[in-house]
Amino acid sequence: MFAIGVDIGGTSIKGAAISKEGKVGEVFSLPIDKNATQEEIIYQLIDSINNYIKEQGFKKEDILGIGCGIPGVSDTKAGVVTYSNNLQWYELPIVKMIEEGTGLPVRITNDANAAALGEAKFGAGKKFKNILTVAIGTGVGGGIIIDGKLYEGNLGKGAEIGHMVVVVDGELCTCGRLGCLEAYCSAPALIKACQKAMDAHPDSKLFDTVKKFGKLDARAPFEAERMGDPYAHEIVETYVKYLGEGLLNYFNIFRPEIVVMTGGVSNEGEYLFKRLRQYSKERYHGFRGTPEVLIMPSELGYDAGKIGAASLFF
Amino acid sequence: MFAIGVDIGGTSIKGAAISKEGKVGEVFSLPIDKNATQEEIIYQLIDSINNYIKEQGFKKEDILGIGCGIPGVSDTKAGVVTYSNNLQWYELPIVKMIEEGTGLPVRITNDANAAALGEAKFGAGKKFKNILTVAIGTGVGGGIIIDGKLYEGNLGKGAEIGHMVVVVDGELCTCGRLGCLEAYCSAPALIKACQKAMDAHPDSKLFDTVKKFGKLDARAPFEAERMGDPYAHEIVETYVKYLGEGLLNYFNIFRPEIVVMTGGVSNEGEYLFKRLRQYSKERYHGFRGTPEVLIMPSELGYDAGKIGAASLFF
Repeated sequence: MFAIGVDIGGTSIKGAAISKEGKVGEVFSLPIDKNATQEEIIYQLIDSINNYIKEQGFKKEDILGIGCGIPGVSDTKAGVVTYSNNLQWYELPIVKMIEEGTGLPVRITNDANAAALGEAKFGAGKKFKNILTVAIGTGVGGGIIIDGKLYEGNLGKGAEIGHMVVVVDGELCTCGRLGCLEAYCSAPALIKACQKAMDAHPDSKLFDTVKKFGKLDARAPFEAERMGDPYAHEIVETYVKYLGEGLLNYFNIFRPEIVVMTGGVSNEGEYLFKRLRQYSKERYHGFRGTPEVLIMPSELGYDAGKIGAASLFF
Repeated sequence: MFAIGVDIGGTSIKGAAISKEGKVGEVFSLPIDKNATQEEIIYQLIDSINNYIKEQGFKKEDILGIGCGIPGVSDTKAGVVTYSNNLQWYELPIVKMIEEGTGLPVRITNDANAAALGEAKFGAGKKFKNILTVAIGTGVGGGIIIDGKLYEGNLGKGAEIGHMVVVVDGELCTCGRLGCLEAYCSAPALIKACQKAMDAHPDSKLFDTVKKFGKLDARAPFEAERMGDPYAHEIVETYVKYLGEGLLNYFNIFRPEIVVMTGGVSNEGEYLFKRLRQYSKERYHGFRGTPEVLIMPSELGYDAGKIGAASLFF
């Protein structure tokens, strides 16, 4: 018995059979056609799944179901994607459609929640019960695992952990509030800070990173800092401070055993994590006996979403 | 079958038999002797409990156990009060002591958690599954109820929801961090803001509230605002803004069905809650289909702690 995990991204959809031990089978993928309607995309996905099952020679009775991780907000119980900003999907009854198209049970969750569940069950969090994942990329998202189970909040709308104001009246966030952690710690926030530094300092080594990467991206400040650029150093120090304060907020609110860092910016790895650990250790506030929270990288990487989506059936 | 709920406060300890339906029996209480050692206080509590059981004519076999809500941080599994700042208790094995002294099973939790559990099971939250309580008094604390169960975090050290930084590099908090919600929204923070306004404005009606209440206290800005004082109005507006941002953070992180407001400042009731609801409604960020979070007052008042502590056995 196994389940099929489907990870719906902004530009493509990937899926695979996932065993109950979290092993990933052969992967199928399809691009998301920007000109197609939301319903057409789901029909293409249904075709892909049915073809995959046929090609792999799977028997339907061996498949527990199909789990999907979806960017944006969904009513997970009703099985409807309420709104996906990335995909411009609205009120899409995805569960009903895929169930009718495949004859298999379907469950959905937010993509960040799916990744959190994957890491919790089979990745960096597998030894722990209370886990927070923090995903840093285009936005700042995450997932909350309480006592081994995904916590989604009312109508699946919780765990929007990046939309936590850390500066009242601060920077405008994509959500409309002022001062969210996302407005300081997302990849676009880093790029904005770099652009500002480059405008002010034509001698900055940030320019060299643009040559190296072919564009200004969120790796720039880390790379330029390693080259000894003082302006990049300031950007990274500020970044560690804001992200560190955000993590400390999560520590105090949840006091999980572990925070698992995922997403593009987390690819900086130990270079970033060491400093986050140092920052948070120095500010473990005044409470005695407060246990340390581990800050660790994802173990499953890009498979986390597929594995977690499938494990909605485990 | 019933349990005894004990609420340990800063100046006194109160307890009562609590039925499985949340009904509060006759209450016993004892003052906390500031000159006594932590062990002496527990021996006094044991005597009070044993006398109470005798006086009430209870049979020990009818008592499920004794639940205690304790200010400060405890290792709830080990049954040890790690550190209570208010009481100056350190490493106190309270569960073992009371179990030996009464012959009954004993369970402990944080006082804010106990109140949260009481409200969740028998009070304002009884119709809901995911509940956050926000207690505003000397500090800002609270309790987290997930799927009907108390969430305490690792070693019982979670739910320190007031120690969430909302202004990076902001006001110094009692915990040592800069900019915690507690530093802006506790009763002492309100009093500090009033003192500042009174120093700057000798014509402020805040002075009249001191005459009325016999001291400057956290009711002052609300009372003076009702008298038409513009300086008090500004304090209250700022207060609503910071507390509103804090609540919105909790909404995004947890998306509970309800937030139950407790503690001294919450006694302002609808005068405060109406404005908090208005503030949060205007800033429900951009996500479609995001369900409203109710902001409601405690229903159990001062009984919440006792009821919740007892219900550790229900």
